[in-house]
Amino acid sequence: MTSADSADSALVASGELRIGWAARAMPVLTALGERFAAERPFGGLRIAACLHVTAETAVLMGTLKAGGAEIALAASNPLSTQDDVAEALRDYGVVVHAQAGVTMDAYYRHIHQALDIGPDIVLDDGCDLVNILHTERTELLETVSGGCEETTTGIIRLRQMAAEKALRFPVVAVNDTRTKRMFDNRYGTGQSTMDGIMRATNTLLAGKTVVVAGFGYCGRGVAERARGLGARVVVTEIDPVKALDASLQGYDVRSMAAAARAGDVFVTVTGNRDVIRGEHLAEMKDGAILANAGHFDVEIDVRALDDLAHAVHRGVRPNTDEYVLADGRRLLLLAEGRLVNLTAAEGHPAAVMDMSFSAQVLSVAWLVRERARLEPGVYDVPGEVDVEVARLKLAAAGIEMDELTPDQEEYLHSWRLGS
Amino acid sequence: MTSADSADSALVASGELRIGWAARAMPVLTALGERFAAERPFGGLRIAACLHVTAETAVLMGTLKAGGAEIALAASNPLSTQDDVAEALRDYGVVVHAQAGVTMDAYYRHIHQALDIGPDIVLDDGCDLVNILHTERTELLETVSGGCEETTTGIIRLRQMAAEKALRFPVVAVNDTRTKRMFDNRYGTGQSTMDGIMRATNTLLAGKTVVVAGFGYCGRGVAERARGLGARVVVTEIDPVKALDASLQGYDVRSMAAAARAGDVFVTVTGNRDVIRGEHLAEMKDGAILANAGHFDVEIDVRALDDLAHAVHRGVRPNTDEYVLADGRRLLLLAEGRLVNLTAAEGHPAAVMDMSFSAQVLSVAWLVRERARLEPGVYDVPGEVDVEVARLKLAAAGIEMDELTPDQEEYLHSWRLGS
Amino acid sequence: MTSADSADSALVASGELRIGWAARAMPVLTALGERFAAERPFGGLRIAACLHVTAETAVLMGTLKAGGAEIALAASNPLSTQDDVAEALRDYGVVVHAQAGVTMDAYYRHIHQALDIGPDIVLDDGCDLVNILHTERTELLETVSGGCEETTTGIIRLRQMAAEKALRFPVVAVNDTRTKRMFDNRYGTGQSTMDGIMRATNTLLAGKTVVVAGFGYCGRGVAERARGLGARVVVTEIDPVKALDASLQGYDVRSMAAAARAGDVFVTVTGNRDVIRGEHLAEMKDGAILANAGHFDVEIDVRALDDLAHAVHRGVRPNTDEYVLADGRRLLLLAEGRLVNLTAAEGHPAAVMDMSFSAQVLSVAWLVRERARLEPGVYDVPGEVDVEVARLKLAAAGIEMDELTPDQEEYLHSWRLGS
Amino acid sequence: MTSADSADSALVASGELRIGWAARAMPVLTALGERFAAERPFGGLRIAACLHVTAETAVLMGTLKAGGAEIALAASNPLSTQDDVAEALRDYGVVVHAQAGVTMDAYYRHIHQALDIGPDIVLDDGCDLVNILHTERTELLETVSGGCEETTTGIIRLRQMAAEKALRFPVVAVNDTRTKRMFDNRYGTGQSTMDGIMRATNTLLAGKTVVVAGFGYCGRGVAERARGLGARVVVTEIDPVKALDASLQGYDVRSMAAAARAGDVFVTVTGNRDVIRGEHLAEMKDGAILANAGHFDVEIDVRALDDLAHAVHRGVRPNTDEYVLADGRRLLLLAEGRLVNLTAAEGHPAAVMDMSFSAQVLSVAWLVRERARLEPGVYDVPGEVDVEVARLKLAAAGIEMDELTPDQEEYLHSWRLGS
Repeated sequence: MTSADSADSALVASGELRIGWAARAMPVLTALGERFAAERPFGGLRIAACLHVTAETAVLMGTLKAGGAEIALAASNPLSTQDDVAEALRDYGVVVHAQAGVTMDAYYRHIHQALDIGPDIVLDDGCDLVNILHTERTELLETVSGGCEETTTGIIRLRQMAAEKALRFPVVAVNDTRTKRMFDNRYGTGQSTMDGIMRATNTLLAGKTVVVAGFGYCGRGVAERARGLGARVVVTEIDPVKALDASLQGYDVRSMAAAARAGDVFVTVTGNRDVIRGEHLAEMKDGAILANAGHFDVEIDVRALDDLAHAVHRGVRPNTDEYVLADGRRLLLLAEGRLVNLTAAEGHPAAVMDMSFSAQVLSVAWLVRERARLEPGVYDVPGEVDVEVARLKLAAAGIEMDELTPDQEEYLHSWRLGS
Repeated sequence: MTSADSADSALVASGELRIGWAARAMPVLTALGERFAAERPFGGLRIAACLHVTAETAVLMGTLKAGGAEIALAASNPLSTQDDVAEALRDYGVVVHAQAGVTMDAYYRHIHQALDIGPDIVLDDGCDLVNILHTERTELLETVSGGCEETTTGIIRLRQMAAEKALRFPVVAVNDTRTKRMFDNRYGTGQSTMDGIMRATNTLLAGKTVVVAGFGYCGRGVAERARGLGARVVVTEIDPVKALDASLQGYDVRSMAAAARAGDVFVTVTGNRDVIRGEHLAEMKDGAILANAGHFDVEIDVRALDDLAHAVHRGVRPNTDEYVLADGRRLLLLAEGRLVNLTAAEGHPAAVMDMSFSAQVLSVAWLVRERARLEPGVYDVPGEVDVEVARLKLAAAGIEMDELTPDQEEYLHSWRLGS
Repeated sequence: MTSADSADSALVASGELRIGWAARAMPVLTALGERFAAERPFGGLRIAACLHVTAETAVLMGTLKAGGAEIALAASNPLSTQDDVAEALRDYGVVVHAQAGVTMDAYYRHIHQALDIGPDIVLDDGCDLVNILHTERTELLETVSGGCEETTTGIIRLRQMAAEKALRFPVVAVNDTRTKRMFDNRYGTGQSTMDGIMRATNTLLAGKTVVVAGFGYCGRGVAERARGLGARVVVTEIDPVKALDASLQGYDVRSMAAAARAGDVFVTVTGNRDVIRGEHLAEMKDGAILANAGHFDVEIDVRALDDLAHAVHRGVRPNTDEYVLADGRRLLLLAEGRLVNLTAAEGHPAAVMDMSFSAQVLSVAWLVRERARLEPGVYDVPGEVDVEVARLKLAAAGIEMDELTPDQEEYLHSWRLGS
Repeated sequence: MTSADSADSALVASGELRIGWAARAMPVLTALGERFAAERPFGGLRIAACLHVTAETAVLMGTLKAGGAEIALAASNPLSTQDDVAEALRDYGVVVHAQAGVTMDAYYRHIHQALDIGPDIVLDDGCDLVNILHTERTELLETVSGGCEETTTGIIRLRQMAAEKALRFPVVAVNDTRTKRMFDNRYGTGQSTMDGIMRATNTLLAGKTVVVAGFGYCGRGVAERARGLGARVVVTEIDPVKALDASLQGYDVRSMAAAARAGDVFVTVTGNRDVIRGEHLAEMKDGAILANAGHFDVEIDVRALDDLAHAVHRGVRPNTDEYVLADGRRLLLLAEGRLVNLTAAEGHPAAVMDMSFSAQVLSVAWLVRERARLEPGVYDVPGEVDVEVARLKLAAAGIEMDELTPDQEEYLHSWRLGS
């Protein structure tokens, strides 16, 4: 039985509802779909993609298909596959090799099946597909013009391949653009982190002291939202320039040792380990809430918390564990120290994926246009793509900008030349 | 079989966990419990209460019991009864006549059973217990010293009784104090409304236009939180003084006719009906989100929305229905136009109930102290109670204030005299 | 020599420029002038006024004159008289008895001369004119229909007169309306206080700790503006409810003893004396700035500061004195502890006077309409006047509001009835 | 008569007061002075400086002298020389060749006199001293180890010299560091621009619509402060990414054509010309205020304003000219379209100069340490200098940071390696 045989109209309907919901928050991708339907920049191209099979990815697939591409999609992680979305995509004419919860054998077989399309372009999320292409399916390399990679981890692998001259085509690193960083790190993480804390604890934030460890883009976003919810915000940092900036923005900058005694809620978002350690936990107030918004679950030293605790009550609230210390104080760990915005809330809204997937399709269009001149290697997203994504996002929101007059163009030009 | 017979240790444990969670966010009530345990102001008193049987109410019961009261509790609404909490209360020695989902007959029987205690003091939430007392159980009236009533509806009924000289004892209207209004209307409703919108839609609020209809205490709270989450806020009002205040606070004040075209999210919180009408719905942007945070579900004209819609998709997200207009635009109604903060989020955090229940126990203590001199009638919460609640809340949060020096006392005194 | 003889065209031109500048920030008064020019509500009335002879007052005089009044104006304080404005007013047809810097004898003579008009209505600012009328010019009392009083001090005197049954006509206390309090206390004082501190010290406020003593309307305004300029704000209070509100708004509430060590800038705005005392001054950081925004210069204990100082350098900046303590720390006192917003900046913008003077002319119109039924006594500004001022202010700013539909009127009405 | 002969003790005292005032807002430079007094890094070095002879520069001179330098100072602009400061510096042992208001001949002679010291290091502000050194005083070049240049204009000239291989020693471009940009552009310009508008107009900003043209660092600072003063802020931009960021920060982004009709106050801060043109001026509201915070006075098209106006009233307020259009509307141009923060307020507070002068002395120390290995050319301020300035600024403000533990160092290191 092939995947296509399993069509189920209820599943299709459910998937379409999900995709429709995602699409309404993805106006940039939708606008690109309309443009591509007219211009057909991907006419005659075959694309093999290895991505999370979710409603947002389905909108991406629709945009590429509208532009003329023939697509085969495998899952980049079997746990994230939404079977109804997969079914709706099949119904729409995308070949999908994915099912929730399959074995690792089936996972790799699906990638092979997606590659069977004989791709001109590949889209990857973690570098597994590109890796298989360069090792087990080298017969297909000849016709591949280029690819896109979503993740930091994938980019690291690709750069190593490039350094060893093993990479055989150009790949655009779409994980980091100005617009994505803005949407994702600052505003996306900022809102979803506070959202996760509210869903987990239903605590009133007005008048609380929220300690934000780390004042990078994400930390800044969290601090802004915590302040916006009425909290006093304390920032901890190790970088003097960031610490100074936080102070000038009116935040109370302290060492974690000092902040530990003051905080009602703690959010780590540093990218480092052991930011909240036993020595800090020992000083905290009864009822302090501990949350992590950094990528890995190493920022709060959970082992130290376990050592300090005389009793642990799991699930006193959804995603909330209570650790009772010897003196009766209770500390509340959210989401076991894992990403609170993904675990206790829903992570990035579709609006965020709209920005990164739009950068992805525009990068594909750029690859197709430029493929004749591009050497194998890892490429940043071209600056024009970022500008185009921002421009479309503004247009979708009905926001008007100014245009330079010819006099102004000349003035700026002469100034940059230093007259 | 008596209630006590039904003890179930698993149910008790579950209830205790809930009550413990609530108690940690109720430091004022907890502090009062400690004080009353020493002072025993309710020693020898019998209290009959008709309240929602929830974890927060259980903390209130504990505080009264610590002060020496003997208590019988009935539910003020069978739908809100938490059976595990009821069981834990019984285990703690409170007589509870309540069970989730009982018939109206059983509901009224439970109130009668609670009255059987022969109360000195009554606590009511909606005036049903007081009403039964004055009609069917008049033999008990003799010994009743006074009562408290939680709700606006109950107060209206009591005032009518007082006007008709039917009310036989003093009742404190605990539904409206400065501290409760501050906690509840401004900060509680503000946060929980935005929380409800995020849970229902997972929409990114940064950069969105949020229209807040009504700039009373609740509307002010919603506007502050929407702005704090990065939204541009438009306010509509009918009262020129409130409109002017909103404008001076930097909000964009418009008519709803003008706001309808601009908004991405609409929140009604006026206390009036038909604030968003067909003429407004017809002008809205595709994807506009409609939420109500006013008490009754009359603020958004849902019938007009039904009339405009060519199709309705229920549950496109939790608590979210999609109405598709003739021209394809989609409007999203949250919680069917009912209170979005209660339906899509969890309503008031325990911290809010801490303030109103603390006002309640202090009002009871005041009634007990003053009962000899009080005439039957409806009384406001004494100003000293409000000040005491605020003082205890600050102490619980470790916040220090200044005290007037004797010179300052004298200066203020002389100034007020105008000498 | 009559006033008219002294006309000086240069003085008139200068005065007209000033009046024109004030008028542009007084759109409500201007709109009322246009309405009154059509309706002539003061046709045939004689008004005697005793007010500061400034550009803003001149706009008020123009509005009354447009409505048909014949006016005689004396100064309520010879120091505040702007001679060019007086001259321009004379040129415009208002009889003005005022000159900058005259003796107290001349001051009182001017009031008598203004009264010579034989007033139907009197406008007073400090109660001197009304006092003379009731003591030395009782022959004029017969025809006086009513009056307005601007100041708190005047109101106190009037209430004493009323209590002693000495007051012979109705007087509206125009010093306190919702719109004036909003404009004046919260937004006016808030901005002008921070403005005064910047003009005096040119200090960068971002990242500074500003301690605001007192969280009434004025203190709230100062705290909002300090935060808005990037400062961390610490609030001190003696009232638990206000302290709690400040805390819930995200401010750091402390005792002055604790705040003294943390602050870079201190602003007192309590209405009480000795808010910053020797014990606080002794703890402050080198370079701390001390400013008062309360009405009287008693809030900072300047005598204690003098006692602590080993040297004082006057005028190290405009309106800034430096006090050097024994250990070398330097404290900077602004405006000698007097109102910093009036002394170091320019006090209330004309926009503020627009609100209070508009309330005044509308109160006069109300007096005229209602005089037949009004008993002698002190009256609050009628609520309708406040609403009208706000409505006109919104209209002048081009801000649209909603109007209640008949259904909504009925709904509110029935709700209030509690049916 | 030599400069030294003109000593005047009153002048010295006045200068010392000014310098003392500046020093108190320059804690970083002061801390460096203390460090250098111990380490003597400039022992035996001669420095020729050509800088504005102001109190802030005097603090810089003190820091260098504390470190062991022998200094000769000439003015970089005769108009900015503060004669009392010059005199106080002479009294302190710095050779100063500067006098307010001298001729251009004297100006250049002073630079020559400063060069007579035979410098090891030169400090320049506009490149005049370096230019003379390379053309008329080449005999001194041999012993010059390096220099610093303050201005953008100077840097452009130096880069041209470097490109032509004419530059004979290394020069650090101290005009642009992260800490300076933060202090200067965002917080300094933000505050001082709004300060200038308030001093010029005394207008109440709460409730006003402020249009900020340009959302670079300066524009962001102005927008934040305008919002913080209670204004609604409209942003105009030509760069989609900046426009999107402004929108996500909750600002209302529009074209200038649309903003022109809405604004009460306009601030240009784009670095471009003709940002507000005749077509925009023609649409503005009566009473609109026009201010420029960009470097050159080309951003508001003042000629177009002149053409539109039927009458111009200069100086209706300090630094405020009123342009009356044909239909009676009045537009108010501040500071003739020149930098409003410098003209109507006082420009950068000393706190800002503390950051750039501290970067300068640390750059000199770096030059001295590294001179053996540095080639002639223009160098950026080393990253370590920026970090050091921020660290000292935090220490001066009593702000504590965290330090990385060895485990954290290793974790970051391994992560960066991608292993």
